[in-house]
Amino acid sequence: MNNMKDMAPGAGAPPSGHIEIFDTTLRDGAQGEGISFSAQDKLAIAGALDELGVSWIEAGNPGSNPKDVDFFKSAKKLRLENARLCAFGSTRKKGVRAEDDEQLSSLLSADTEFVVVFGKASTLHVKEVLKASLDENLAMISETIQFLRREGRTVFFDAEHFFDGFARNRDYALKSIVTAAEAGAVRIILCDTNGGSFPGAVAEGTHAAADCLADCRAAPPLGIHAHNDSGLAIACSIAAVEAGCVQVQGTLLGFGERCGNTCLAALIPSLQCKMGLRCLPNGKLPRLTEISRRVAEIVNCTLSDDMPYIGTHAFSHKAGMHADAILKARSSFEHIDPALVGNGRRFLMSEQGGRAAIAERVGRLTEGVGKSHPAISALSRRLKALEAGGWAFDGADASFEILAYKELGLYKSAFDIIAYRVQSEHPAGKLMECCHAWVKVLVNGQYEIAAAEGDGPVNALDGALRRSLLRFYPELARMRLSDYKVRVIDGKHATAAKVRVLVESTDGVSAWTTVGVSADIIDASRLALVDSIEYYLQRVKQSAISPISQTNFSP
Amino acid sequence: MNNMKDMAPGAGAPPSGHIEIFDTTLRDGAQGEGISFSAQDKLAIAGALDELGVSWIEAGNPGSNPKDVDFFKSAKKLRLENARLCAFGSTRKKGVRAEDDEQLSSLLSADTEFVVVFGKASTLHVKEVLKASLDENLAMISETIQFLRREGRTVFFDAEHFFDGFARNRDYALKSIVTAAEAGAVRIILCDTNGGSFPGAVAEGTHAAADCLADCRAAPPLGIHAHNDSGLAIACSIAAVEAGCVQVQGTLLGFGERCGNTCLAALIPSLQCKMGLRCLPNGKLPRLTEISRRVAEIVNCTLSDDMPYIGTHAFSHKAGMHADAILKARSSFEHIDPALVGNGRRFLMSEQGGRAAIAERVGRLTEGVGKSHPAISALSRRLKALEAGGWAFDGADASFEILAYKELGLYKSAFDIIAYRVQSEHPAGKLMECCHAWVKVLVNGQYEIAAAEGDGPVNALDGALRRSLLRFYPELARMRLSDYKVRVIDGKHATAAKVRVLVESTDGVSAWTTVGVSADIIDASRLALVDSIEYYLQRVKQSAISPISQTNFSP
Repeated sequence: MNNMKDMAPGAGAPPSGHIEIFDTTLRDGAQGEGISFSAQDKLAIAGALDELGVSWIEAGNPGSNPKDVDFFKSAKKLRLENARLCAFGSTRKKGVRAEDDEQLSSLLSADTEFVVVFGKASTLHVKEVLKASLDENLAMISETIQFLRREGRTVFFDAEHFFDGFARNRDYALKSIVTAAEAGAVRIILCDTNGGSFPGAVAEGTHAAADCLADCRAAPPLGIHAHNDSGLAIACSIAAVEAGCVQVQGTLLGFGERCGNTCLAALIPSLQCKMGLRCLPNGKLPRLTEISRRVAEIVNCTLSDDMPYIGTHAFSHKAGMHADAILKARSSFEHIDPALVGNGRRFLMSEQGGRAAIAERVGRLTEGVGKSHPAISALSRRLKALEAGGWAFDGADASFEILAYKELGLYKSAFDIIAYRVQSEHPAGKLMECCHAWVKVLVNGQYEIAAAEGDGPVNALDGALRRSLLRFYPELARMRLSDYKVRVIDGKHATAAKVRVLVESTDGVSAWTTVGVSADIIDASRLALVDSIEYYLQRVKQSAISPISQTNFSP
Repeated sequence: MNNMKDMAPGAGAPPSGHIEIFDTTLRDGAQGEGISFSAQDKLAIAGALDELGVSWIEAGNPGSNPKDVDFFKSAKKLRLENARLCAFGSTRKKGVRAEDDEQLSSLLSADTEFVVVFGKASTLHVKEVLKASLDENLAMISETIQFLRREGRTVFFDAEHFFDGFARNRDYALKSIVTAAEAGAVRIILCDTNGGSFPGAVAEGTHAAADCLADCRAAPPLGIHAHNDSGLAIACSIAAVEAGCVQVQGTLLGFGERCGNTCLAALIPSLQCKMGLRCLPNGKLPRLTEISRRVAEIVNCTLSDDMPYIGTHAFSHKAGMHADAILKARSSFEHIDPALVGNGRRFLMSEQGGRAAIAERVGRLTEGVGKSHPAISALSRRLKALEAGGWAFDGADASFEILAYKELGLYKSAFDIIAYRVQSEHPAGKLMECCHAWVKVLVNGQYEIAAAEGDGPVNALDGALRRSLLRFYPELARMRLSDYKVRVIDGKHATAAKVRVLVESTDGVSAWTTVGVSADIIDASRLALVDSIEYYLQRVKQSAISPISQTNFSP
């Protein structure tokens, strides 16, 4: 394997067989609807991207957002090992000298060695949006790049709307990038700004660009910047790489305007594992899942479970037949080994799941329980009965483990709820909030009762239950609920239907999910809350003798 | 334009320039993690897919899931205009005659004209998973198809793992599909079962399949069935169509095992608007967004905002440069006109958003209220404030109408809830069920109080509220709740998050939906229940002077 020091990003072309990963989460990603990063978020994201080993981090547009200037100042204290920061801006204004352009001064004030400048490559945008002559646009591109070079910057050129421009006026689109190359840009990035191009058109445009630049003095390497408006951003990026691009721009999790930018977490494994192209330093790809999820946590967004490679469902098998086949030949239903990207295989515990999958799962919890162990049959029957009653353990690993231990006779409850009452009344009384609850528990022969008010009845019940247990288990102070979901199982019975509640909990290090089902939503929540607390207490108990690990949990 | 009657799906090849859309939401989609459809959901989804105009609906696997047999029975009462139902199953078991295969009997018991049979096209799967000889697998394919034809079925053949098989042993993969064609399958579907293939490999495999089948007696048309494990399902489907496939299989919203199947809602517009291929009957494409969102509602899942074409962000523009450019030239930042798929452009910072639409809607309720009426501004402001607080009126027309009448000053409540209390306690008392409620109402100056027990707290509240009103409004006996849904709006606040409740009600003739939002699920339900009853009472009052009609409702 090559040492990645060869690939420390710079102005020169990357070594053959290497692809530069350029992340623009902090710039183009920030333009996504509903995305807003605090200054702390931005520093944490830059740190995570560097840890993953991307080559470039486009971190802001100081000319359009003055706060970005502050970010570049504070980013100086980041000790980046792999990535270089870029500032982003546009070509000079029409009719203004580059030296006098305020936006370019702001771009310089970011004080980065590398700057990205975007300019127009489509005659539609030059004429209808910029309202400039075609020649003036070329002068704007050329003079801006030359000015920035005189100021000591290394310049990347983003050819905005390149592919739409190429379809409309091929010669002009190519002329715009030749102009940038001749002015001294060291990378030419072909942008599918509207995200509507097909991979075939991207391949054709990229080939034409490469041919045309090959005749230039400098012949800078090409990059691709795609958007996902047709669901084709990944395919367009692959097509561009096949046609000669050596830089791929995107955002780690696919954030970006409208339908988002190319999702790098879903692209990098294909480039590296399937096309044999080096994108990340040695040993970094297996950290992709963990770092991607960390970035999602920083941004406080929920990653889609079905994300290629890194999603929690990406290597899940529900159908019994598939699970059975996987156990016979792992490549039978997996396109890559999930360990390559740091993800894991999961067999969903469902009626479609089958005995083999259940045995495999239980075998990880406790040794010596094979497929023929009587507890496996019992557990399988119990699962089927529960699922017929509306339970689902697909997404509730922790409840499944508790159930399995119960069937194995290895389970001892940490507490029992003797009784509880939850009340929701309107209007609120003089001395009491609308929602309140009391809970009475029994722990090692001792009774305790506690009450709480809450924003809703489940919140009140959760509060009262924790209070009643805290005296016995002070470690519960470190655990909190992080997500709550409700699904009406058969809506057609309307308000008398059963509900399934999923509760996700965390201790700040790991997360686990539990489930409860009942016609009474309060009681369904109670069941999920109890499992959640039991699971955590068992893990804590276990950690006294061995390191905490979700898969090692064995009470 | 061709009349789509040309394209009524059948055994023959579709006319040139047409693509058959084959939706498997109810079969492969149901294998997605966390997806579970009730019988009612399945019927409603089939109805929506037919309304959209897909050609085929693969609705279940009766051999592996006995409940699917019941579905096919109840589906007979659906009057489908455009789509045909297919049942799905596998080739006969190794060493068993097709006539004696239980799974095939179940498949036949679905009693559909069209059946889909999957068989193995990859030597890896034949040898390692099936543990059969290569010849035996071909016999299984051939005999199964011949048996089903003898039983009067028209057979589609799904060549499982075709592309992986083609890469491993090209001749055998092709032999498997030739065997199916010669046995009389009328479609050969090339499956990328593991979802790991690249578009280039799909194009190559499809070309080879087409060449090879061209020499067969029957030469059945080809289809493509892709999965999204590399984020390339849409690109692979397009590559297959370019290489000659005339059927595309997928799921409307991309549901499916692991990373999902090809998302048809994101693919159809590309095929139809960009490649000029007819997929849906005349006038159906502009209903894509509405029907897709309705299916998401039925399933009670949240559609990703960044979904290509149909997502709420798909044509959103942050204020400033892009919005400005759009106003100068609409194609400058839009790859297609959003109206083509029934979506709309949004300028995120614009106060203009929605005024015209609101005026149009209110104009349907009451005459003489134009866009400039002051109530429209007030209603627009009120909607914005409510939406910021988590309300959504998309799926709750009846609540929207009540809100509009209130702003227009035309609304008089039929009753007021003075106070209520709902209690959920465990264990149940000696004299009382776990869940009980009382409600006190005021109607025309008269108080009434009533109590009820219920299966859950909302059921108890609903019962008590109806009893308290029945003395004043005996017509309420004809109205009942028909559906109930709960969505946690911000799951990350866990049990203190807000919930949105949707209630569907019916009088046996028509149905209407109302919404309520609160941190307290009981109170959110109360809001939706009250709107639901108010809406019905107003309609009954109205019906004394004019026929009941949801859009004519004008109290």
